[in-house]
Amino acid sequence: MTRTVLESKSKTVTIGFDEPFCVIGERINPTGRKKLAAELELDDYSTIERDAIEQVACGATVLDINSGAVFTNRMASDPRYADNNFVEPPLMRELCARVQALVDVPLCIDSSVPEALKAGLEACQGRPLVNSVTGEEERLETVLPLIAKYNVPVVAISNDDTGISDDPEVRFAVAKKIVERAADYGIKPHDIVVDPLVMPIGAKATAGRQVFELVAKLRDELGVNTTCGASNISFGLPGRHGINAAFLPMAIGAGMTSAIMNPVRPAEMEAVRAANLLMNHDENGSDWIRFARILEAMKEGATLAEASQAAGASTRGGRSGRRRARV
Amino acid sequence: MTRTVLESKSKTVTIGFDEPFCVIGERINPTGRKKLAAELELDDYSTIERDAIEQVACGATVLDINSGAVFTNRMASDPRYADNNFVEPPLMRELCARVQALVDVPLCIDSSVPEALKAGLEACQGRPLVNSVTGEEERLETVLPLIAKYNVPVVAISNDDTGISDDPEVRFAVAKKIVERAADYGIKPHDIVVDPLVMPIGAKATAGRQVFELVAKLRDELGVNTTCGASNISFGLPGRHGINAAFLPMAIGAGMTSAIMNPVRPAEMEAVRAANLLMNHDENGSDWIRFARILEAMKEGATLAEASQAAGASTRGGRSGRRRARV
Repeated sequence: MTRTVLESKSKTVTIGFDEPFCVIGERINPTGRKKLAAELELDDYSTIERDAIEQVACGATVLDINSGAVFTNRMASDPRYADNNFVEPPLMRELCARVQALVDVPLCIDSSVPEALKAGLEACQGRPLVNSVTGEEERLETVLPLIAKYNVPVVAISNDDTGISDDPEVRFAVAKKIVERAADYGIKPHDIVVDPLVMPIGAKATAGRQVFELVAKLRDELGVNTTCGASNISFGLPGRHGINAAFLPMAIGAGMTSAIMNPVRPAEMEAVRAANLLMNHDENGSDWIRFARILEAMKEGATLAEASQAAGASTRGGRSGRRRARV
Repeated sequence: MTRTVLESKSKTVTIGFDEPFCVIGERINPTGRKKLAAELELDDYSTIERDAIEQVACGATVLDINSGAVFTNRMASDPRYADNNFVEPPLMRELCARVQALVDVPLCIDSSVPEALKAGLEACQGRPLVNSVTGEEERLETVLPLIAKYNVPVVAISNDDTGISDDPEVRFAVAKKIVERAADYGIKPHDIVVDPLVMPIGAKATAGRQVFELVAKLRDELGVNTTCGASNISFGLPGRHGINAAFLPMAIGAGMTSAIMNPVRPAEMEAVRAANLLMNHDENGSDWIRFARILEAMKEGATLAEASQAAGASTRGGRSGRRRARV
């Protein structure tokens, strides 16, 4: 049975076919958030810290830490800031330290800069997930040795030097190549979490079915866990949360075992928790029943984060568990 | 390719693996609605008529017509009313006539009384679905000849004289037996829509996975369409709509092609429409985009039925289609 084991200072999270779906919180990421990048440039970590706490309260059991900030103002006075190789390593170190000081969940070190991955690996307590390697030769050669050296799992994105193929068979072949190349470094398939790449359904009508078929094939033939950037599926369409909230259960039914997603969104988290229940990955339905109470509390106007934090505060100390990450 | 063809006076609805999910509206059913039974006893059909119009506006493309009323007051003065064989046939005739006068969608004739099924078959324009035959000997012998005589499709529920088995293999075997017995009457598999029986997940933790596996097996090995009473899955649990709204996409992903469900519920209908989009059963996403507009309109307080009727009124005449049932 494939088990990808992640660790924080004191918690273990297992991604696996017989485990609850692993929600990797995507919020700590300045690449798509200009306001956040500007805050980081001023050494203001308040948004990051709030995001860490809220995401864990809402049910993320792993937090993605992306250091891809562009520091426009510093760049103007110091040209070294135009280089991500200069910006990201110290930022990654700082982000990891700050997040780990607040929440006890495994991290997912996310950067295109190898030195930033290394900085994150050095800063992390426990066993983080590295995001990511691709099938590109240069990336394979720089990232896989790091993965082997630190003995950590890695997200493998199924594109290569030719780009992202429209053909799911090609994407499967790229994933297979990464698994094989990883084996040369002594990295086992259970430490590779394949991202089969989710295309927007608005651009490609077969995008959903492609992913469902690829996920099943990756599980059955390569024995690997899978992840995705779930909200890509609805890009450009109206009613995105409704599309995401149907996509996640369908992907989970097909065998998807994790996603990098926004855990403060109630529609998506309701869908994930209901899917866990329906997959028989929620013993006695206790997670669902607890979540249903939080949804009830939200009817009075609270956000998911507020209602979850209130529920956490009222039960704190009453429960604990290997899988349950706590603020 | 399996295609179950239903017809109303002028519309055709096809249940099939490559068709949008067929939503069979469940509301016209006095068995679980005491107030409705009391109205029918007084020859008051106003609720039935509103239910017919609203369900079609919300997206039901077939309407279930269940005649299982208990007429308590009439029973007191006339003992014949204690017998469903006396009550149901004329009631079924009346219900079919009234619904057909209002909406142009195929009907699903639903009764445990064979004479009521016959009355419905005689009253129906087009090609209705009959609900249901089971694997019980007596039921096979009374219902299958009717199905053959009227050349209509039938819902086959996978229980038999031994009851409902906990074992999905037994439920599959019952479905197979019904398909074989139907063949003796010249009824083809494409005219049999199997209900694999959905158990409450609160009572049986494997209920979801059982259904997903059964549906795939019924499709792959017997080549039949499938249906279910979708809301059974969440019976007894809090947050039922959230469970139903994850169950439907997962069932659709596994191959389920129809459900008997409440189409005036926005969470469930949003899930079905998003799943159609994700299965590539919604050309150009046009149904989804239209539905997203209706959801937007609901933010101002309208029900799904009201917002759908308003949207229908504003576009009436502007669109038409074989699959799109219209009030």
